[in-house]
Amino acid sequence: MKEMEHEFLEFLKEQKAYEEALALIQWDLRTKAPKKGLEQRSEVIGMLSQKLHQLSTSDQMKYYIDSLKGQTEDEIIAKSIEVCQEDYERNSKIPEQEYKEFITVRSKSETVWQEAREKNDFSLLQPYLEQLVEFNKKFANYWGYEKNIYDALLDLYEPGMTTETLDTVFPPLRKALTDLVSKVTDATVKPDSALLKHHFPKESQEKFSLEILKRMGYDFDAGRLDETIHPFAIALNPSDVRVTTRYDENDFRMAIFGTIHEGGHALYEQNIAENLAKTPLATGTSMGIHESQSLFWENFVARNEGFWDNHYDVFKQIAPSPFQSISFNDFYGAINEVKPSFIRIEADEMTYSLHIMIRYELEKALINGDIKVKDLPHLWNEKMAEYLGITPPSDKEGILQDIHWSAGDFGYFPSYALGYMYAAQFHHAMEKDLQVDSLIQSGHFTDIKAWLARHIHQYGKMKKPLELLTEVTGEQLNAQYLINYLTDKYTKIYQL
Amino acid sequence: MKEMEHEFLEFLKEQKAYEEALALIQWDLRTKAPKKGLEQRSEVIGMLSQKLHQLSTSDQMKYYIDSLKGQTEDEIIAKSIEVCQEDYERNSKIPEQEYKEFITVRSKSETVWQEAREKNDFSLLQPYLEQLVEFNKKFANYWGYEKNIYDALLDLYEPGMTTETLDTVFPPLRKALTDLVSKVTDATVKPDSALLKHHFPKESQEKFSLEILKRMGYDFDAGRLDETIHPFAIALNPSDVRVTTRYDENDFRMAIFGTIHEGGHALYEQNIAENLAKTPLATGTSMGIHESQSLFWENFVARNEGFWDNHYDVFKQIAPSPFQSISFNDFYGAINEVKPSFIRIEADEMTYSLHIMIRYELEKALINGDIKVKDLPHLWNEKMAEYLGITPPSDKEGILQDIHWSAGDFGYFPSYALGYMYAAQFHHAMEKDLQVDSLIQSGHFTDIKAWLARHIHQYGKMKKPLELLTEVTGEQLNAQYLINYLTDKYTKIYQL
Repeated sequence: MKEMEHEFLEFLKEQKAYEEALALIQWDLRTKAPKKGLEQRSEVIGMLSQKLHQLSTSDQMKYYIDSLKGQTEDEIIAKSIEVCQEDYERNSKIPEQEYKEFITVRSKSETVWQEAREKNDFSLLQPYLEQLVEFNKKFANYWGYEKNIYDALLDLYEPGMTTETLDTVFPPLRKALTDLVSKVTDATVKPDSALLKHHFPKESQEKFSLEILKRMGYDFDAGRLDETIHPFAIALNPSDVRVTTRYDENDFRMAIFGTIHEGGHALYEQNIAENLAKTPLATGTSMGIHESQSLFWENFVARNEGFWDNHYDVFKQIAPSPFQSISFNDFYGAINEVKPSFIRIEADEMTYSLHIMIRYELEKALINGDIKVKDLPHLWNEKMAEYLGITPPSDKEGILQDIHWSAGDFGYFPSYALGYMYAAQFHHAMEKDLQVDSLIQSGHFTDIKAWLARHIHQYGKMKKPLELLTEVTGEQLNAQYLINYLTDKYTKIYQL
Repeated sequence: MKEMEHEFLEFLKEQKAYEEALALIQWDLRTKAPKKGLEQRSEVIGMLSQKLHQLSTSDQMKYYIDSLKGQTEDEIIAKSIEVCQEDYERNSKIPEQEYKEFITVRSKSETVWQEAREKNDFSLLQPYLEQLVEFNKKFANYWGYEKNIYDALLDLYEPGMTTETLDTVFPPLRKALTDLVSKVTDATVKPDSALLKHHFPKESQEKFSLEILKRMGYDFDAGRLDETIHPFAIALNPSDVRVTTRYDENDFRMAIFGTIHEGGHALYEQNIAENLAKTPLATGTSMGIHESQSLFWENFVARNEGFWDNHYDVFKQIAPSPFQSISFNDFYGAINEVKPSFIRIEADEMTYSLHIMIRYELEKALINGDIKVKDLPHLWNEKMAEYLGITPPSDKEGILQDIHWSAGDFGYFPSYALGYMYAAQFHHAMEKDLQVDSLIQSGHFTDIKAWLARHIHQYGKMKKPLELLTEVTGEQLNAQYLINYLTDKYTKIYQL
């Protein structure tokens, strides 16, 4: 048994090596690679991904699963076998030919999405989306589900999450958020983010970003910060977790909050327990839990009043002269402005989850066959009007804004809203142990970082997302904490 | 046959994909990677290298070689088969266990070399070098040779080169160089490089480096410039060839000439014919020919009087104030100062090849069993005194300075001197077609770059080094061109 366990661990290392090479290639492509090299690079990606796929569905893998499952006494090996088995079954249930066709359609669809957006013409994309919906339905049926076909897809990104749960938490959240949004819209006190739109040199933004990352406890000996177009954090291994950001010289918020957000993701990966390294457990447990970590730092820490009370001096030292005359209160209000808007990725923390619910409802209905792809544009606009009180002037600002569906990803969107709810719930749990606000106000992030590492980060994939949530917070998913947090915070800011 | 050729090309693509991933990892390790990630990265390197090695010695490869050799009508496939066969035989002739032992000894030896250098204690390294010499002798015997066992090693780096040829060209070159060096040493006119040692900010050096690379015709859409400790150029594929350099703020020559040198290597790789891409032919044909390209740009172009006549204005615009008072003549003399020195990598273009001959003679004697490892330190010092007229004060400045032998590489050193001779011979050939000096003086590098691409670069490994040399220059290797070039140039500078 010992010998087989050792062999299995060596086999996992091989998988990890391919993953690490692929992660480096992705990082390079999005930060440093010269444009003419891209074509051949995508062949390299294709080849290495294929090898990885082959390993995950190999007879060798099947042999390890069959031999070690329920037999090993090593907890890490047992959990690794579980994760490998999920992958094995998921990957081997789809007929190879069908998966290849899916990859081809998806690749075309991503290109067509670009064109459809540029031309503001949904009809170009429609036939591809129709095919991708059908593929997803077929895959979901191969994988199986208990109650709702959409659950099979949800499970890809948020293991254990169900339509039933979402349909329990989303409606009260939606109600609370739409109520809050309409109060904010009617408020007489209105913070104004326009006063933040002064020229802010890239170099100064970078300096501030680096300083904040350092204060958050991000380990620069195990990572680095680079510039990119669409910011991301990426873990090559727990000792090399890189952050990227984007500098908009006319809106410093993009870089500062973006860096902190990605820094939150990076802290998760940097603080996974060392004994999980080189196994499939050495990464975040789900998209939603990952997002809870980035949102925790971005919103609960960096949009907190005490945070700026503490950092406003440093900020002013680095910021150009037009910022010097902004009062602290105006500044704090401005970075927390709430305003219904068309584009999800530009949304504030109050309206964001409403954008997600629109997508969730539509994709769930698509996969269940309750609506048709061709009806998406007007259904989208109807929901925007209902939830946010605004109607996109064109599909470019509506249904065509996100790449997810065009990339074949259905079931992914809920993770973002789950991240908000998890973050609020973790924040509440943390407050039982720590004086969170006063730690933030005094800039002592060490305890906050340690709490997150101890309760969440270290476990990697050893615990499933909902298991982790329950263990850390002592209860199931509960949207009330997010509602409370937003209500308290914005009642003050908008004097509701 | 067509189908098998297609399959073979697909197989080559797989090899190339591994090579490209490895090249990116190497680049990243030496430019960007955070230090804590290195340990796991080396496992990734090990795993990918092993895969590559397995492919090159696989039954599949054997099958392609047996089936396609002499059968295909496609010239590129035929040549690829030839290169693959050389690799196949070289790699499969060494028993696996023996190669593993070699890798282990080599890896330890590299670490011990660092320590031996720090402690200035050759005896620490001696037992490892002894083992590495024995491994090399065994390998050379597995591979076979016609006249001298050392030829089998030489062939690794410079296919077709023999001890016989080197023993024909090196002695007259040595005689000419030692004569020139003693004339220079006795000269009354003495350029002085000390006047170049002023503070020169890194940013300005980078600006100048980028400008020169651009003027050389280096394609920044297919490459980039980064900082590193030991500069190198690396080709991920012909459309992504990266240059690195090192900035010494107290000696700008390191970065400027280093960048141009690596830029010369990079131009070679960027200009390989497109139809060789994704085959083993899409790289430089040998170490020596590669070095001829870097040295061509570094010495024949960038240490040329006309080059600075043209670029001295740009240089002065970028250089800090202490440089403003240096006259053009003093500057040109200073960058061409000749002075026997201990360290090879700091040697000038006249003494450099003498450093190489010392190494060549010693390693040839070691592999032939004519001398013992333990005698290296005093033999080294004797030869230094004989060829360069100076004796290293310690082994740190002598036998311990280079990593090559400690890394198990014997037969590599001659490539550097061959690069000088090839470069001079190519330069002579180019002069028949182009007004080289006046093109350099007017800064019109396009024709020079095009000439090198047309005669040398485009062929990649389609031609063996000596075949290429003969076709381009119309004659065999001939040291006289280097002798003439150095004599003419330094007679003027030193008024000999």
